[in-house]
Amino acid sequence: MNETGHTAPGPGTIREAAARIAGRVHHTPVLTNAAISRMLGAEILFKCENFQKVGAFKARGATNAVFSLSAGELRKGVCTHSSGNHAQALARAAALAGAKAFIVMPSNSSRIKVEAVREYGGAVTFCEPTLEARESTLAELRERTGAVEIHPYNDLRIIAGQATACLELVGETAPLDIIMAPVGGGGLLSGTALSAHYFSPATRVIAAEPEMADDAYRSFRQKEFVPSVNPHTMADGLRTSLGTLTFPIILQHVSDIVTCSEPSIIRAMRLIWERMKILVEPSSAVPLAALLEGKADIAGKRVGIILSGGNVDLDALPWIKP
Amino acid sequence: MNETGHTAPGPGTIREAAARIAGRVHHTPVLTNAAISRMLGAEILFKCENFQKVGAFKARGATNAVFSLSAGELRKGVCTHSSGNHAQALARAAALAGAKAFIVMPSNSSRIKVEAVREYGGAVTFCEPTLEARESTLAELRERTGAVEIHPYNDLRIIAGQATACLELVGETAPLDIIMAPVGGGGLLSGTALSAHYFSPATRVIAAEPEMADDAYRSFRQKEFVPSVNPHTMADGLRTSLGTLTFPIILQHVSDIVTCSEPSIIRAMRLIWERMKILVEPSSAVPLAALLEGKADIAGKRVGIILSGGNVDLDALPWIKP
Repeated sequence: MNETGHTAPGPGTIREAAARIAGRVHHTPVLTNAAISRMLGAEILFKCENFQKVGAFKARGATNAVFSLSAGELRKGVCTHSSGNHAQALARAAALAGAKAFIVMPSNSSRIKVEAVREYGGAVTFCEPTLEARESTLAELRERTGAVEIHPYNDLRIIAGQATACLELVGETAPLDIIMAPVGGGGLLSGTALSAHYFSPATRVIAAEPEMADDAYRSFRQKEFVPSVNPHTMADGLRTSLGTLTFPIILQHVSDIVTCSEPSIIRAMRLIWERMKILVEPSSAVPLAALLEGKADIAGKRVGIILSGGNVDLDALPWIKP
Repeated sequence: MNETGHTAPGPGTIREAAARIAGRVHHTPVLTNAAISRMLGAEILFKCENFQKVGAFKARGATNAVFSLSAGELRKGVCTHSSGNHAQALARAAALAGAKAFIVMPSNSSRIKVEAVREYGGAVTFCEPTLEARESTLAELRERTGAVEIHPYNDLRIIAGQATACLELVGETAPLDIIMAPVGGGGLLSGTALSAHYFSPATRVIAAEPEMADDAYRSFRQKEFVPSVNPHTMADGLRTSLGTLTFPIILQHVSDIVTCSEPSIIRAMRLIWERMKILVEPSSAVPLAALLEGKADIAGKRVGIILSGGNVDLDALPWIKP
């Protein structure tokens, strides 16, 4: 518990996380693009977590969590259920620490993602593609192996790790008026909001979410947890519900949550690809998509956007009809 | 004419070009990727001209050429025929210099490329899509306007400009054993070979070319100019023949020219996109494609590759069947 009555990593914990993961993950670059800034009438700075290890910010939290464990804990390994970037991130971090990683993946996971986990030495256990099956399979695995569960976002070590992206951003740019991040389970957003609060208190944090998965938007408005039900957004990293640890931090430190349509996500994603010559996944494009829709007043302001990742299926780009 | 009897920019001319274009084009980053280096058993460093202004190295030569002109010459403007990156690069450089750019483009040029030229204020004149029509239309235009023609590669100011990419590369990396560049008309390659010769003389320069447009390869082997006839490679920047100025420089300063198949170009392009999260056009992928085919002995060596550009049609990616 911190001074506000909520459990949240403090500034010292975030700085410790940054020191712990230094050399184990990338310090990613901040890029600007004259055409995009001109188009929006603001100065936009992109923190490029698409260039991060495993192609997403998830490497930060997983590395911080794994390297926070004791030697005794590491001996039994770590485990999680994930169909996405956290699975790779945890497998990689465990391999760096010389530990085993047990990953429960739904049986419909993409072949590429399963192979990526195995490439890092992760042991994959398949289950039915339901949340219940994922949780019961993981519980069984945890029982059998004694491995430590590392949740993808509802974990203070993960939140502190994800917070380091914003710590880097505010540490190397002139003061920002606004920082934007996408929101799914809220690990990146809560970490970003904490880092902005501690290290750049005049900066407002605005989250962006797809209309088709607007549970965080509704939870924030109603100040009451609303689960994500049947989300169909192409931004597959943002389909999850907020966590019991991330939601209170978001309520306290995030200024606003805005939404965007699916066509805007495609437009923003394509704009970043064409103008900046970098690959970002749909989730990364969500903040820019909301700005293209005029959802935040940024005229003349300096706006940092965290590009969450670049893992995209090159055979199924959203602007190409199959 | 230099000391060898051929006309080629000297080291002072290349340094002058670098000073002339500084602040008008980007000093592009050099990126590495652990997975690609591991795969090839060598240390590969990528000079990222895909991040250059107008998305290609062409901005260097065009900017150097335009800013080399006298005030009197600039008053009448510049002209060229081009369906590709040189057209945009020249239009942009002219706009920066407050001069007019007259661009002859074949009537089947892509709408995007025509719009890009116009976005920079270039005046487009369409012609039939044959080399004869392009040249006669340009001659007419030159006659009428008095504009100075800036050829895309067979021009010493262009060669000196393109040479600055290699100058930057060797200036900021530990000594390289090999530098690779793709070859089309030879502007980038001849400039690269000159810069390596002057500023990093122990470095060998190896060019790469698609098998389906292997005129430079054959010219180099036969030491006699062979024109490019009906080239069908997807690497559209590499379909042109060598120039009378570029070929002698290449013969003198390039160690070898190697070729690669079209499937290898797709594989290399996709590898760069997936692993490095950056967009490169097919021409950029040609050196890596040749390395994937084992066409050069690079084991344990430090190899610089110039990624020539990132202008790619996102609606027609080569690995997606229409």
